[in-house]
Amino acid sequence: MPRPAGLLVVAEGEGAELPGGQANLAAQVASRIAGHDRLEVRVRSEIPVARGLGSSAAIAVAAAAAAGAIDPFEAGFVVDGHPENAAASALGGLVAAAVVEGLPVARLLRLDPELRFVVVVPDRELSTSSARDALPPTVPHEDAAFNLGRLSLLIAGLADHSQLLATSGDDRLHQGPRSALFPEAPALLDGLRQAGALTSCWSGAGPSLLGICAAPEAEAVAGGAKALMGEHGVPGNVLLLEADLLGVKVEEIG
Amino acid sequence: MPRPAGLLVVAEGEGAELPGGQANLAAQVASRIAGHDRLEVRVRSEIPVARGLGSSAAIAVAAAAAAGAIDPFEAGFVVDGHPENAAASALGGLVAAAVVEGLPVARLLRLDPELRFVVVVPDRELSTSSARDALPPTVPHEDAAFNLGRLSLLIAGLADHSQLLATSGDDRLHQGPRSALFPEAPALLDGLRQAGALTSCWSGAGPSLLGICAAPEAEAVAGGAKALMGEHGVPGNVLLLEADLLGVKVEEIG
Repeated sequence: MPRPAGLLVVAEGEGAELPGGQANLAAQVASRIAGHDRLEVRVRSEIPVARGLGSSAAIAVAAAAAAGAIDPFEAGFVVDGHPENAAASALGGLVAAAVVEGLPVARLLRLDPELRFVVVVPDRELSTSSARDALPPTVPHEDAAFNLGRLSLLIAGLADHSQLLATSGDDRLHQGPRSALFPEAPALLDGLRQAGALTSCWSGAGPSLLGICAAPEAEAVAGGAKALMGEHGVPGNVLLLEADLLGVKVEEIG
Repeated sequence: MPRPAGLLVVAEGEGAELPGGQANLAAQVASRIAGHDRLEVRVRSEIPVARGLGSSAAIAVAAAAAAGAIDPFEAGFVVDGHPENAAASALGGLVAAAVVEGLPVARLLRLDPELRFVVVVPDRELSTSSARDALPPTVPHEDAAFNLGRLSLLIAGLADHSQLLATSGDDRLHQGPRSALFPEAPALLDGLRQAGALTSCWSGAGPSLLGICAAPEAEAVAGGAKALMGEHGVPGNVLLLEADLLGVKVEEIG
């Protein structure tokens, strides 16, 4: 394929209509990795934007990989300085991620293949920066310890859904303060569990909400989620997803 | 065996010399479970007392099991209201534990059988209540998030030692404030890693310190730990342990 004379960017799917949005992010990342901007960048995303679903990191990781990055995870990380979404996009599956001395690290955790994910995606957007600004600067030590206990139970339950406790999705550090930005969230999270989800929690910084389900219950939970959104006057979509286990893949086309 | 007319308590091993200590704890727990005190209670412990090694919970779980408790974990939990040590004593292996609506819950996590545990046991004692009092009532949100990231990396690394990062034992919520009670601890923790431990951290509320090692390095780390204690003027013992994977077992004797 002849190299284009300048940058050509085409976007379709989720976020395609945003001026200066996903397409530009992809172009910036690809240009940085390639070291020039004589690129044709085509973006097709299925991930709703600004919903706490990691769309930016997914685009950045994909663009970096397509442009030949040695470490697409690192390239996705530098876009927003948070490693979690980039790690999941790059590696797939369930990942632990953190920043260690300025560098992102990630490790795979076991994910029970029987799990399914019902995602409530409200029409409203919630910028990650607003969601981060909603967090208090300090928290009770007890709440920090609470979350550590719940995280360990959650990791155990995600490895084996028969061991997944509803309470393992509970949180005292993020969801409470952010509910001021999305007052219907607590009722929706409860409703997801009542509809059959093994547990429920915010997806990333929200406003999307996640119901974690055993496969046989997933359709019913998705139906319940749709009904809940109607009841609570929260327009939007419900996605029923399986985990991607492969992470980023580069395929040659035409 | 004829039932004794009254309570007979005999203790040997670690903690046996403590008046009102382990033997009494065992007798109290066993009497509560049995519903009477016409018991002969013999306690033999290898777990040093008041060192952050969970000796009380281990005794309580063992006494409860010996007295026929349906749930020795719960019986161990009620002794101090913290589930972690009781869960490990009851279940063995690597466990996540938390209190949910007043009740203790625990879940097994994968533990790489190649791991070994070098435990620095200083001669000084540190009561769990002093260690808990040393914790600040509030912590920066950022530090709470830091610990969540490290915990997830730690769980990934304990499942597969080839993935265990040194930083996964780092902590911003407990070890800093408690180091005021044990000023040599930070240097010993660093020294354990330099001696070959994959990571290091406090054991429970301290003052024992843990070096987590791959089996081939364990002897060298134990030797290094002994040398470090000499260098830093911290008298005490070094234990080289494997994880118990069975938890509490009841055996009929005599």
